[in-house]
Amino acid sequence: MNNYLRPVLSAFVWLAFSGIAMADPLPSWNAGPAKERIVRFVETVTDPASPNYVPAEHRIATFDNDGNLWAEQPIYFQLLFAMDYLAERAQTEPELLSSEVLRAAVERDIEKVMAGGKEALLEVVTVSHSGMSVSAFQEAALVWLRSTKHPKTGRPFIEHVYQPMLELLRYLRDEDFEVFIVSGGGIHFIRAFAEEVYGIPPQNVIGSVGESSYEVIDGVPTIMKSPGIAFIDDKAGKPVGIDRNIGRRPILASGNSDGDYEMLEWTAAGEGPRLSILLHHTDAEREWAYDRDSHVGHLERGLEDAASMDWLVIDMAVDWGLVFARPK
Amino acid sequence: MNNYLRPVLSAFVWLAFSGIAMADPLPSWNAGPAKERIVRFVETVTDPASPNYVPAEHRIATFDNDGNLWAEQPIYFQLLFAMDYLAERAQTEPELLSSEVLRAAVERDIEKVMAGGKEALLEVVTVSHSGMSVSAFQEAALVWLRSTKHPKTGRPFIEHVYQPMLELLRYLRDEDFEVFIVSGGGIHFIRAFAEEVYGIPPQNVIGSVGESSYEVIDGVPTIMKSPGIAFIDDKAGKPVGIDRNIGRRPILASGNSDGDYEMLEWTAAGEGPRLSILLHHTDAEREWAYDRDSHVGHLERGLEDAASMDWLVIDMAVDWGLVFARPK
Repeated sequence: MNNYLRPVLSAFVWLAFSGIAMADPLPSWNAGPAKERIVRFVETVTDPASPNYVPAEHRIATFDNDGNLWAEQPIYFQLLFAMDYLAERAQTEPELLSSEVLRAAVERDIEKVMAGGKEALLEVVTVSHSGMSVSAFQEAALVWLRSTKHPKTGRPFIEHVYQPMLELLRYLRDEDFEVFIVSGGGIHFIRAFAEEVYGIPPQNVIGSVGESSYEVIDGVPTIMKSPGIAFIDDKAGKPVGIDRNIGRRPILASGNSDGDYEMLEWTAAGEGPRLSILLHHTDAEREWAYDRDSHVGHLERGLEDAASMDWLVIDMAVDWGLVFARPK
Repeated sequence: MNNYLRPVLSAFVWLAFSGIAMADPLPSWNAGPAKERIVRFVETVTDPASPNYVPAEHRIATFDNDGNLWAEQPIYFQLLFAMDYLAERAQTEPELLSSEVLRAAVERDIEKVMAGGKEALLEVVTVSHSGMSVSAFQEAALVWLRSTKHPKTGRPFIEHVYQPMLELLRYLRDEDFEVFIVSGGGIHFIRAFAEEVYGIPPQNVIGSVGESSYEVIDGVPTIMKSPGIAFIDDKAGKPVGIDRNIGRRPILASGNSDGDYEMLEWTAAGEGPRLSILLHHTDAEREWAYDRDSHVGHLERGLEDAASMDWLVIDMAVDWGLVFARPK
């Protein structure tokens, strides 16, 4: 190719693609009422001539993470990481394994851990997630997410993000929304990958919070993760976490389980235009199909009330043309 | 005036003023080493050609509030509000005054309250600040700040913000810093005025956190303020609050008391260019002069270590040409 033509062609390609992006900000969403409602909502609140116009500083959008921005089957990825990390640490710190639940965890006996309910899960998470600096923890989490393969798909865990949601996040940011994650998962775990994968900076990650402390260790100021849970950002904790960390009610909220019910309810109850979105996992072929009977991402009350609450239900099998993002 | 000339003249005036703003982003700061160091720091980290360039997403700046962005004498304004608010509520809810400290508070017996130490202060704040929705609380706080006059200056409390700090906040935002408040004061109280007064949106206000809960009251989803303290954002709590809420170390931090010591230390200890700023209240004529012997804004360790830590000490009497912002 003539070298002088290259920049011209690049510009042409760029223009062509940006033209496509303008025409369809959500290319992985199939045409239908769900996609239409999202686009109509965004166009309405960003149109200064609309009676439902919302100034940019009030365009707050909150997204659950597990089962909403990325997959959560066979179980929350953070728990799988916690078990591997605990097992790795126990090689040199065997005293960590001080209970039946913790020993079951390092044997990857998920059923036994799950049988202990939320308390057992929290024990595995808090014990594995304490006793190191925040930065050491996040480095370990990111290495694990990139190098460990999902038992069903065979792909690294970090690749299980949903392409349609990446497009929605970008679309909202392009329209001057401020986008937050509001997750039951831990803030340090999610921040380890959220900026790279979702483009969401650490200050926009809200989640459950483990205790931590500021210590000067050998002259080096350090934030250490310590045992105990400071805040659980789930169910009624989600609106509380939103109030504490944002201080403004979202105009759009997106979740997939009954753990998101109160966030969607709080969002929808605000004045003016609001959009509460519930992702229904209906796609056993490309992902997983689960709701009322699932131990992870349990969804029952939300499905029952969605219609009367005017929440938008996304049917994954019908509404999404593509599920997982292609690796970069 | 010839009407055709008006737009031309307006444009001229605008250009002249914007020219001044570009020439001096900190007009209320007197020329001198303090102002020079701030401007040099900002110019360095924003210059892509500088080896000390910092990308915009890492330009995090954190500011203490009381005694740093606005005044804190004779005592924290939030405590004065708490006493007035408690007295007002006690007229219809006399059962609120269940202790000596609380009764002293509604009699405005500040000395007696202060004699009870931090526990007494917290009791007055938590009792007065619970039992209502967040929005009702914030409305009351804002009304109080606008209508109640400071005993010494005779001006409404909301007018006691420092003009040089308003200029610094704006200068940093203009240079693509993300500016946060990191205060020992309560988040709901500060958010009641921070956006209007400082241009800092609620999601960028970090502070002490009272307990709260999500409740659906008569069908209306509500965040209620409840008794108890969830987090104290002071001293070693400040780096912890920064980690929880931002997840990234500031490159610039600004405070005025030993309660800010750890925040300045944490900030200065990061890699690359960092600026930790300590405001020294030295101006008994225009404001107040206090440090080691003050019960409010106690500053001792910070003054001792500032030189060896390479923190910038602002001498209010010398470095500030103007103290309080003129009312809008």
